[in-house]
Amino acid sequence: MAWNTNLRWRLPLTCLLLQGAMVILFGVFVRYDFQADAHWWTGRVRRNLSDQENEFYYRYPSFEDVHVMVFVGFGFLMTFLQRYGFSAVGFNFLLAAFGIQWALLMQGWFHSFQDSHILVGVENLINADFCVASVCVAFGAVLGKVSPIQLLIMTFFQVTLFAVNEFILLNLLQVKDAGGSMTIHTFGAYFGLTVTRILYRRNLEQSKERESSVYQSDLFAMIGTLFLWMYWPSFNSAISYHGDSQHRAAINTYCSLAACVLTSVATSSALHKKGKLDMVHIQNATLAGGVAVGTAAEMMLMPYGSLIVGFLCGIFSTLGFVYLTPFLESRLQIQDTCGINNLHGIPGIIGGIVGAVTAASASPEVYGEEGFEGELDPKNTGKVPDLWSLGDPGHGPDGRHHCGAYFEITILGTTFR
Amino acid sequence: MAWNTNLRWRLPLTCLLLQGAMVILFGVFVRYDFQADAHWWTGRVRRNLSDQENEFYYRYPSFEDVHVMVFVGFGFLMTFLQRYGFSAVGFNFLLAAFGIQWALLMQGWFHSFQDSHILVGVENLINADFCVASVCVAFGAVLGKVSPIQLLIMTFFQVTLFAVNEFILLNLLQVKDAGGSMTIHTFGAYFGLTVTRILYRRNLEQSKERESSVYQSDLFAMIGTLFLWMYWPSFNSAISYHGDSQHRAAINTYCSLAACVLTSVATSSALHKKGKLDMVHIQNATLAGGVAVGTAAEMMLMPYGSLIVGFLCGIFSTLGFVYLTPFLESRLQIQDTCGINNLHGIPGIIGGIVGAVTAASASPEVYGEEGFEGELDPKNTGKVPDLWSLGDPGHGPDGRHHCGAYFEITILGTTFR
Amino acid sequence: MAWNTNLRWRLPLTCLLLQGAMVILFGVFVRYDFQADAHWWTGRVRRNLSDQENEFYYRYPSFEDVHVMVFVGFGFLMTFLQRYGFSAVGFNFLLAAFGIQWALLMQGWFHSFQDSHILVGVENLINADFCVASVCVAFGAVLGKVSPIQLLIMTFFQVTLFAVNEFILLNLLQVKDAGGSMTIHTFGAYFGLTVTRILYRRNLEQSKERESSVYQSDLFAMIGTLFLWMYWPSFNSAISYHGDSQHRAAINTYCSLAACVLTSVATSSALHKKGKLDMVHIQNATLAGGVAVGTAAEMMLMPYGSLIVGFLCGIFSTLGFVYLTPFLESRLQIQDTCGINNLHGIPGIIGGIVGAVTAASASPEVYGEEGFEGELDPKNTGKVPDLWSLGDPGHGPDGRHHCGAYFEITILGTTFR
Repeated sequence: MAWNTNLRWRLPLTCLLLQGAMVILFGVFVRYDFQADAHWWTGRVRRNLSDQENEFYYRYPSFEDVHVMVFVGFGFLMTFLQRYGFSAVGFNFLLAAFGIQWALLMQGWFHSFQDSHILVGVENLINADFCVASVCVAFGAVLGKVSPIQLLIMTFFQVTLFAVNEFILLNLLQVKDAGGSMTIHTFGAYFGLTVTRILYRRNLEQSKERESSVYQSDLFAMIGTLFLWMYWPSFNSAISYHGDSQHRAAINTYCSLAACVLTSVATSSALHKKGKLDMVHIQNATLAGGVAVGTAAEMMLMPYGSLIVGFLCGIFSTLGFVYLTPFLESRLQIQDTCGINNLHGIPGIIGGIVGAVTAASASPEVYGEEGFEGELDPKNTGKVPDLWSLGDPGHGPDGRHHCGAYFEITILGTTFR
Repeated sequence: MAWNTNLRWRLPLTCLLLQGAMVILFGVFVRYDFQADAHWWTGRVRRNLSDQENEFYYRYPSFEDVHVMVFVGFGFLMTFLQRYGFSAVGFNFLLAAFGIQWALLMQGWFHSFQDSHILVGVENLINADFCVASVCVAFGAVLGKVSPIQLLIMTFFQVTLFAVNEFILLNLLQVKDAGGSMTIHTFGAYFGLTVTRILYRRNLEQSKERESSVYQSDLFAMIGTLFLWMYWPSFNSAISYHGDSQHRAAINTYCSLAACVLTSVATSSALHKKGKLDMVHIQNATLAGGVAVGTAAEMMLMPYGSLIVGFLCGIFSTLGFVYLTPFLESRLQIQDTCGINNLHGIPGIIGGIVGAVTAASASPEVYGEEGFEGELDPKNTGKVPDLWSLGDPGHGPDGRHHCGAYFEITILGTTFR
Repeated sequence: MAWNTNLRWRLPLTCLLLQGAMVILFGVFVRYDFQADAHWWTGRVRRNLSDQENEFYYRYPSFEDVHVMVFVGFGFLMTFLQRYGFSAVGFNFLLAAFGIQWALLMQGWFHSFQDSHILVGVENLINADFCVASVCVAFGAVLGKVSPIQLLIMTFFQVTLFAVNEFILLNLLQVKDAGGSMTIHTFGAYFGLTVTRILYRRNLEQSKERESSVYQSDLFAMIGTLFLWMYWPSFNSAISYHGDSQHRAAINTYCSLAACVLTSVATSSALHKKGKLDMVHIQNATLAGGVAVGTAAEMMLMPYGSLIVGFLCGIFSTLGFVYLTPFLESRLQIQDTCGINNLHGIPGIIGGIVGAVTAASASPEVYGEEGFEGELDPKNTGKVPDLWSLGDPGHGPDGRHHCGAYFEITILGTTFR
């Protein structure tokens, strides 16, 4: 965690200014969602919605799991480098703490703005964590190359762009992406790769010897890997519709991740001269199945469909670590420290395609005559899910409706770098 | 993680073949449970079951806790050996990822098979994790002696036998074992000890010096211990009946584990020449209370009953580490690397006995006139619990009904090695 | 973990005696709460309360999070010292396991005593964990200076005093303190500082070189920090009223903690000669926001109010580490190993003041005509919250009612050292 002495006052000032701005903006804009507001519940509407039906109980356990993924999962995943362990965890902590506040505002202006206030509930907290997850992904590409101030600035811009991108995809193009394959992972990966390309300096290559891991640091990284792997079903189901959608999203993610572990191990061993396993692959490629199943997790993908997705992603992701990362660095001067292109970039694109195919094969028989939108009935879910609240509520009962948009986004996702 | 070079292609091929078989079998057999299926919910039955009543919300938080126990808990518990830290976590990850898929199939054929399909919901995911926990227990006995391919083969056979054993105990003998003292822990321990006996080679004794721990590796192992300890109430309550049964199972496990810590510390210190604590005892024996209270956790064992169980298990388990493990190795040529006989074997048998005694002392006054079976009413729980679904629904209202079977199983559990 | 050989029999005997006493006292006094009792549910009252409404489902996920904070959070937070890593985790484990049992009894006699029995449910488990959290705080001041026997004795007395203090504040003075700023953190901190003052010996200063951290131990400590930080919203919302109160408590804590990270980093960097970050500040001061927002978390503090609290606490806490801790040690002979005065003492006092101000500015318009007490309606919450059960149920509909008491407690909190 070395930086120049001329940063003596820059970091304190940046932090205090950003945090001061947050206080003011929160004071002007942010209020509680009706489900967290004492006015509302003690008033007349209370009788219609019991405490049990409070969104809190549907989402809070998943929220805490996602929170663990962002702070412990991504933080420790990046400790595999011997000399950047504390930077990885500490800077990840700093950027995420700032990012969630700025994301609450940015996403709030786009999605939860009512009567000149942003109304914040547990779903906003989850979405803010999702947005920050995208920044953590990008951090993986620039680990060891940036100062905390640069990270805070990167976070500021990435969160802003994330919210705009999310608005375009989810609201204007009417895309469904509950697990964020495209909005979180693909966007985060290509944003990070763009930043690392810009930061490329010739002398970075000389620091090659710093890019090594030791036994202990690999065990710390496994803590990150496992918490990401275990809680990914919560990640993909956290903001799905209540009931069967959340249930299905968890099952699909569970299956996809399990399959991904076996094919990652197979590919890693097959590509090693002596058939050994590369720890970097075990730490990263095993997670690709969770990324790739994100978009389609809440759809009727079927357990075997999830296994196929995980099967393919374990292979592609490991191949990416072996062949693509060195290529990017030597030819395109993109030094991808943690291999985010292989873990988030490519699997995210696969996830978009899987979502498109699944949506295209959907039919009224599968999702019922009401289609997914039937679930928007506020009496049923207690709340119109955020992601859709600005969308056109009359886009018809057909699940196929969206399939056209999916292909656009896959391209769009890559366009946004 | 050293293995022979002739394994160059064996591991990749084994992984790919197993995973390919899983994809095909899932494609043929596995479908969503009605609570995770969009067809069902959007159809006519929807009005009768609200989103809130979806099994997902009763079970999902416990499921994630169990998931953490299997992957982080068992994985890191075994990192105490200086030279096998990464093997422990990595191989545990691999075998569990394969095991949960195969367990979903095996348990599904026995317990959730309807209209030529296995219907999978969150309870199946928990049961698959339980089954794999049994394999992780067995892995503790063979840590450092097996290749990943041998582990995958062991997992295949153990999961198969587990499902058969579980079917015999729960369905044919009508035994209740929600926390799996017998089905998971005793079975896993004696399966593992059998395997390690078979794998015994004379020259293994020469590798004695590898069986040492260092300061850092002991701290990593404490991560495993603590996550197992903290989440054990979820483990024992995860598939109990809704409401008071889950509530009671969590309280009983909490009490038993707390008592077990104090008596483990007492015994460990008393048996040390200088009164010091042995870290291996702190890492393992403190968990025995959770194992032993598994069967009876959801019964009216009473908090003081749980304390007594924990009290005794802490002592017995520590005594086992000090006297039994060396005896097994020197006389019976059973090298029990992690001491699973003391943590899972003996406490599991105690658990079976405790369950039998508790069930034997049950009466209609305690559980109500309907007995436990009153809870089977589908209107009440939303779903007939899996474990009982093939059982005889008319075996009378008396809680004592089962007590006879318990003793049989305790013996049976040990017969199954 | 070195202690004298004359302790050979003392520790085993102490543990066995304490645990034996617990078994007897539990046998005499502790029974299941009606929500965990099979008698009750299968009897006549069952029809009025569905399984879904069981307190278990409102509280259990938060309970597990709090459990993780107590055992992994506090345990690993104290591993930062190179030579006391295992002592920190192991002794914390021991004292907490004893403490939760004794707390169940002490708090039970004061709060859940009915018909000569203590009725235990999930809320009691959470409250016992809270009580032990206070002991863990105090342990932070004496880490490295006490034997496990001394710790057990300290735990015995602290839990006893905690329950008395809690009874005076919550029941006699009618104070609300759901997140325990005063009852848990301020009390724990000043109890611990008193003990460390008593234990002060001149030669302790010579052991200065043991008070150092190494790279690996700092990473282990970050595990503790992050699990405390991530699960703090559960800590502050765990025993709040159902519905909007729990929801609001989680949002407020989330916001306060996020703000606290940035100002801690700013202050840490500003106070370092070269602008570097001090890992101790990152590990500790970032948590102060959670402490300080505890009392007011479930009130209508507003998200910006939470940010202001976090903003200030990050600064004050870091200043405390830099200036106050050395002052206490050199002048007042209070050696505060982990700096608990800065993390729990001062932020706890701030928390009391924030609670008082928030309560003072409450009005019937904000909380509804029924005030907070409206929520006490048993039909609404399923159960009269424990904390209030012995209080005067008729203390009027005005939220302002309590404001007077708050100032008293803040002083009282500091009086209790």
